[in-house]
Amino acid sequence: MSDLPVAPVPPFEPPYYTVVFTSLRTEADHGYDETAEHMEELVAKIPGFLGMDSAHTPGGLGITVGYFRDEDAIKEWRAVTEHRAAQRRGREEWYETYSVHVAKVERSYGFERGS
Amino acid sequence: MSDLPVAPVPPFEPPYYTVVFTSLRTEADHGYDETAEHMEELVAKIPGFLGMDSAHTPGGLGITVGYFRDEDAIKEWRAVTEHRAAQRRGREEWYETYSVHVAKVERSYGFERGS
Repeated sequence: MSDLPVAPVPPFEPPYYTVVFTSLRTEADHGYDETAEHMEELVAKIPGFLGMDSAHTPGGLGITVGYFRDEDAIKEWRAVTEHRAAQRRGREEWYETYSVHVAKVERSYGFERGS
Repeated sequence: MSDLPVAPVPPFEPPYYTVVFTSLRTEADHGYDETAEHMEELVAKIPGFLGMDSAHTPGGLGITVGYFRDEDAIKEWRAVTEHRAAQRRGREEWYETYSVHVAKVERSYGFERGS
């Protein structure tokens, strides 16, 4: 996953969906970065995918939030074969523990300095 | 905010709410850590507050996700005077840009190694 200081994904007009993925990694690293990058490329191709935010505290928690227009977009992403394989490897190797919260956005707002 | 490798907040039984706060900081730092820690103490006192996950990529994005039982809990947190003051300082000094997504969780699940 990129560590560039990109801006957060802007708020969209509700309703839309967030998928909040919070995780603690194992020490195992082989293939993780490549897979994460590849997943970013794949999810971007899903119709109804709106964007993604990622942050990772060194040695601590990682949080990825995906934004989707509707449930169908999430369903389509869940069905992608390579995504399922990556999830399996995640459970086998990369993650000590994770939580997923799928939620429908009811309200959103943002702030930009100088605007 | 603590950088300890704590576990992610576990999934709760839906429905509940997530407040996703994604931000990019300015260079200004004075008082930020103290205020963030104080906010963590304050929000924990709100009835219906369930937990909070935070991750911060050095030099990049910060993500904080708060979990609340219902809208009333979020409303109560929004009304806390010190919280409002901290938000104001955030806009004046600490944040270059941020987004907030308030969403109702419909589905949640988790994984724990060895369980």
